[in-house]
Amino acid sequence: MKNLIPAIVLVRPQMGENIGMCARAMLNCGLTDLRLVNPRDGWPSDKAESASAGALAHINVTIYHTLAEAIADCGHVYATSGKSKQTLAKAIFTPEGCANEIHARAAADEMSAILFGCERSGLDNDELAQAHSIVTIPANPDFTSFNISQALLLMGYAWLRAKDETPAKLLHRGDSPAATHAEMENLIGRLFNELEEGGFFPSPALRPTTERNIRASLYRAEMSQQEANTFQGMITALIGRKKRP
Amino acid sequence: MKNLIPAIVLVRPQMGENIGMCARAMLNCGLTDLRLVNPRDGWPSDKAESASAGALAHINVTIYHTLAEAIADCGHVYATSGKSKQTLAKAIFTPEGCANEIHARAAADEMSAILFGCERSGLDNDELAQAHSIVTIPANPDFTSFNISQALLLMGYAWLRAKDETPAKLLHRGDSPAATHAEMENLIGRLFNELEEGGFFPSPALRPTTERNIRASLYRAEMSQQEANTFQGMITALIGRKKRP
Repeated sequence: MKNLIPAIVLVRPQMGENIGMCARAMLNCGLTDLRLVNPRDGWPSDKAESASAGALAHINVTIYHTLAEAIADCGHVYATSGKSKQTLAKAIFTPEGCANEIHARAAADEMSAILFGCERSGLDNDELAQAHSIVTIPANPDFTSFNISQALLLMGYAWLRAKDETPAKLLHRGDSPAATHAEMENLIGRLFNELEEGGFFPSPALRPTTERNIRASLYRAEMSQQEANTFQGMITALIGRKKRP
Repeated sequence: MKNLIPAIVLVRPQMGENIGMCARAMLNCGLTDLRLVNPRDGWPSDKAESASAGALAHINVTIYHTLAEAIADCGHVYATSGKSKQTLAKAIFTPEGCANEIHARAAADEMSAILFGCERSGLDNDELAQAHSIVTIPANPDFTSFNISQALLLMGYAWLRAKDETPAKLLHRGDSPAATHAEMENLIGRLFNELEEGGFFPSPALRPTTERNIRASLYRAEMSQQEANTFQGMITALIGRKKRP
């Protein structure tokens, strides 16, 4: 199984800065096959180079005169388009739905392309007609106009994330492991003893509830061993201070 | 249950263009609470206005002198940061993991803020220390440097999508409903009859396989009624043409 990376096709892009921002967004996501169909201001472009923050050096850029040539080797072509244009009888994907399909096609050795139209007006109807499917980014219905590099980033990120296994939440306690239950109970037990000596629990009836609340906040902190030790030291310091005349 | 929209806090942002692009990305995702801590080039900014593509008119922008003031009303603060800086003992979220938590906090009436550092160097350690948690965008490990508005877009989009129910693939056949099974079988039956008359099936032994393959491609097209009718018309035209002398 090859892992075919989809081609990114910018059709009649206008501003070099945007092409450069597109290249940067592509490389952020591990995409490297950039195809330009009739870039308005020519190629290469100093403005693109500067806006790419170094990414263009790692991107393979090819120039074409027609869209058909640019996608000649692709088995499936996805056209990005805003909601207002969808009058064609094609399936409409979210970026995530499209990304999953692209990976499935790559696993079957099938190359995909994703088309982006010019900044001013997007893909025209003849360009859309050359695609198999449409991708539309779900957005605030009152403001659906995406900068081209922003739209590209969302597609690229969806493609990257479809195969990415970063956990949604990674606990991170520096170099110290999590405090064990016994270490936390040692800390909490000592704290409660010192609090009792300091007259913190005036009513025996309320004490169990108060203790449960304190315990809840300390366990919620999910301390490391080092942090539990620091809290022990803080108790020692506070006791010593109180005892000073 | 209020639906609290998270505050977006740009700490020491440098370029007006980037602030404008951030505003555009925010509005794309339905975010409207933008807080700027010491913007380098002052505020308001013509460059920001122009780069926002009209979005700034719909965004509530507030200027602060310190980060602490900017997040004073927030119950939970998420700091965006690249991988290299994560030496603090805080949980690290993906944008999607963070977005789900923000919605859960909002459902409990808890306001969240998302911090973004300056373009050159991101958030410094003292700024990171004021946050409860970290958000890191999974990216190409060889090129993790995101433009600030691109990073913001990914956070905003994750927040929008966590509550969005757009189907991953929406079938779209224009105004015509899907062809029914009977309509498709009518088309296919007629096609096979005409093909037989044209001598398309030389070997009776292979005919069932050939028919199954043709049927597979026609069903895969998931035609509308109108498209099935068009195919009937195409058969008629092709027969007529063949019969011409």
